[in-house]
Amino acid sequence: MAQVPYKIYLSEDEMPKNWLNLQAYMDLPPMLNPATGEPVTQDMLEAVFTKAGSAQELNKTDKLIPIPEDIQRFYKMYRPSPVVRAYNLEQMLGTPAEIYYKFEGNNTSGSHKLNSAAAQVYYAKQEGLTHLTTETGAGQWGTALSMACSFFGIGLDVFMVKGSAQQKPYRKTVMETYGATVTPSPSDTTEVGRKILAEMPDTTGSLGCAISEAMEKAIKTPNCRYVLGSVLNHVLLHQSIIGMEAKAALDKYGVQPDIIIGCAGGGSNLGGLIAPFMAERIEGKNHIVFRAVEPASCPSLTRGVYAYDFGDTGNMTPLIKMYTLGSQFIPAPNHAGGLRFHGMSAIISKLRADGLLEAVSYEQTKVFEAAQLFARIEGTLPAPESSHAIRAAIDEALRCKETGEKKKILFGLTGTGYFDLSAYRSFIDGTMTDYVPTDEDLQKGFDTLPKLG
Amino acid sequence: MAQVPYKIYLSEDEMPKNWLNLQAYMDLPPMLNPATGEPVTQDMLEAVFTKAGSAQELNKTDKLIPIPEDIQRFYKMYRPSPVVRAYNLEQMLGTPAEIYYKFEGNNTSGSHKLNSAAAQVYYAKQEGLTHLTTETGAGQWGTALSMACSFFGIGLDVFMVKGSAQQKPYRKTVMETYGATVTPSPSDTTEVGRKILAEMPDTTGSLGCAISEAMEKAIKTPNCRYVLGSVLNHVLLHQSIIGMEAKAALDKYGVQPDIIIGCAGGGSNLGGLIAPFMAERIEGKNHIVFRAVEPASCPSLTRGVYAYDFGDTGNMTPLIKMYTLGSQFIPAPNHAGGLRFHGMSAIISKLRADGLLEAVSYEQTKVFEAAQLFARIEGTLPAPESSHAIRAAIDEALRCKETGEKKKILFGLTGTGYFDLSAYRSFIDGTMTDYVPTDEDLQKGFDTLPKLG
Repeated sequence: MAQVPYKIYLSEDEMPKNWLNLQAYMDLPPMLNPATGEPVTQDMLEAVFTKAGSAQELNKTDKLIPIPEDIQRFYKMYRPSPVVRAYNLEQMLGTPAEIYYKFEGNNTSGSHKLNSAAAQVYYAKQEGLTHLTTETGAGQWGTALSMACSFFGIGLDVFMVKGSAQQKPYRKTVMETYGATVTPSPSDTTEVGRKILAEMPDTTGSLGCAISEAMEKAIKTPNCRYVLGSVLNHVLLHQSIIGMEAKAALDKYGVQPDIIIGCAGGGSNLGGLIAPFMAERIEGKNHIVFRAVEPASCPSLTRGVYAYDFGDTGNMTPLIKMYTLGSQFIPAPNHAGGLRFHGMSAIISKLRADGLLEAVSYEQTKVFEAAQLFARIEGTLPAPESSHAIRAAIDEALRCKETGEKKKILFGLTGTGYFDLSAYRSFIDGTMTDYVPTDEDLQKGFDTLPKLG
Repeated sequence: MAQVPYKIYLSEDEMPKNWLNLQAYMDLPPMLNPATGEPVTQDMLEAVFTKAGSAQELNKTDKLIPIPEDIQRFYKMYRPSPVVRAYNLEQMLGTPAEIYYKFEGNNTSGSHKLNSAAAQVYYAKQEGLTHLTTETGAGQWGTALSMACSFFGIGLDVFMVKGSAQQKPYRKTVMETYGATVTPSPSDTTEVGRKILAEMPDTTGSLGCAISEAMEKAIKTPNCRYVLGSVLNHVLLHQSIIGMEAKAALDKYGVQPDIIIGCAGGGSNLGGLIAPFMAERIEGKNHIVFRAVEPASCPSLTRGVYAYDFGDTGNMTPLIKMYTLGSQFIPAPNHAGGLRFHGMSAIISKLRADGLLEAVSYEQTKVFEAAQLFARIEGTLPAPESSHAIRAAIDEALRCKETGEKKKILFGLTGTGYFDLSAYRSFIDGTMTDYVPTDEDLQKGFDTLPKLG
């Protein structure tokens, strides 16, 4: 076997032609209609999402789903993404472990989000839709969707959390360069926005409010649907391109990971990265350890409960069986905006409940220590979200140094930190603080869980 | 021959092991000592630059110079960079031309600058230096040098034009994350800075002033040298990795460009991109057209004179025979900070004087039209500098559409525009304006040219 290069790029004809549908390997509890307690049907989903997305959301049978050619073509603009062997990091740590990371940040959206944006916008176009709406917090999802909408010729309204729009004006500019209309939320363009503004004129908004505005706008606009960038089964399906590529790249060099590590907010990156490896694990073909990493400030997998809950603070979504802190849990400020979600995707949650996936949490100053170290030795400035996985990978490699184990560690580097420099600023200045909710804080969230039948 | 993929990546063992020294193919006029009018010697250069850099600066004999293994190892962190076939752009333009671009933006510095930063810092380390100083305007060079210094363990002082440091605080944060000390210039840390502040306490600084501070600091600090990111022969040498990779990638698919287009500020990107192709052109082995693109606001190649001039406004450098607008020419504001230099590298200038290289200029609104179009159809948000090359490549492709010619166009996409969003903002808002100097403006600059002999 040839020596593993610093970066493994698949050739274009080696790129995966299929997504892997992890749902088909599992017995996933259904989403429920909160009004009736009955499982949600495809018809109900189609009122909000695209037909194809709705069908994929409920598809428990097809293990592989072909990637449409136009989406493959879009992927070729910025994929394949490399699997990088972190030789420099290994050497600096003095570990016998081998460290690999799948890098998804080399595109203008700065993250893996583009993988699902491309798919969802393609399907919208196929189904004759002319507009889409969404919300964005940190801005990576909004940017990714803007890029895909611009390419496929679909109009896009992004409701951006007002505080975020004020703090990150350049994220707004990127989306507008790609032709999206960006509205700071709450706004006076929707009923729900006007209502919130009347009650709280000075609010800087929230993701829950932005979701509500985006959903209202979608429902009231002809030929329009609402799209989501994480949590849902069909989003994880699209993100499986990450794992399919990673596995193909590692297979070329005969590398079988012993442990796979990913950050987890809504679960789309982690679900995508582990997909083909987990499928084999479920089939008893490997013994890989899978480890989710989350912020200590928003510890759904490590301190949450596995229960049916709403996916949004406005309680407009179906009920999802997931690890949750309660839909009214408001995480304390944390710079990893992409990980500040009270729940977790149904797929990741079920894997955790079944003992197939571990979870750990870190406070953010520890995470930024790892981020800075990684930037200096591996070159790339990582996103705060991704840096959670870096922290866990470094700690695993240091344990290997103690035990002498030559483990093969694979982690997901989901994105770059170019738009997170105020966070790096506070880390460098020593003003960054950590937040860990008390048991009482968590109980308040759990008290808001819906009571079922 | 196989169909050309969207992106051509060389494998690690196909990566170039040598830089190409274009100087060895040319009869380049020597740099002169302004005090004596005599050619500059290696000893004189070594007072300011590294020994290796000084030797390379004057090396007219070695056509290929081996890349030291540690630099090759550094390159493997972010290279090879892809040659991209712009299939989507071709289709949108409806041109029979084939458009290729070499993309240098996929690293945290956001540009090709890292190629020379790595080399210069490596040599500094080899020679026992412990500190380096430099200046930065737009910030790409300062970022690249910070990354290289962090990797090789060398201290770095960056003097950043004060106006730029105020407008781009995040650029400063990136450099500091990599461990550099960033001082807004003019500062009270140098004699020249204090003198300028005493005269103009409210000045926002200039590149010329930052250069003077960085040189003073280097001279007064033990084991310290000053490093430059463009213009010089040894910088173009290091940047030849761009062209060497591009040629190897295109050769794999039997593609011989008919025209090569690059933006030109100091000339390092253009000189690097064209190096192996131009060497063959000089040897009569091809008939490629080479085209430099510059801003109409700073038109050294298209409206300047070919004469000996200083490389800096402070007139501390040796005299360089180059196309120049005069060292006291102050270009009007333009968002492509990397192209706002009064002169041009000696190598590019000589090629232009010998009729081997064409030059065109564009006003910035035309450039940003091309930038936005490119972002939307090819995905990547380009740097304003690089967008000059995009504009010229699109115009060439549109000419091919008229004539039916199937030309193969290669251009250099030197970097990304993630830190240039205030420029995109003004373009989207319609507040961007163009500046073209009058003949009288230019004459004022020419009047400052040094009188020789």
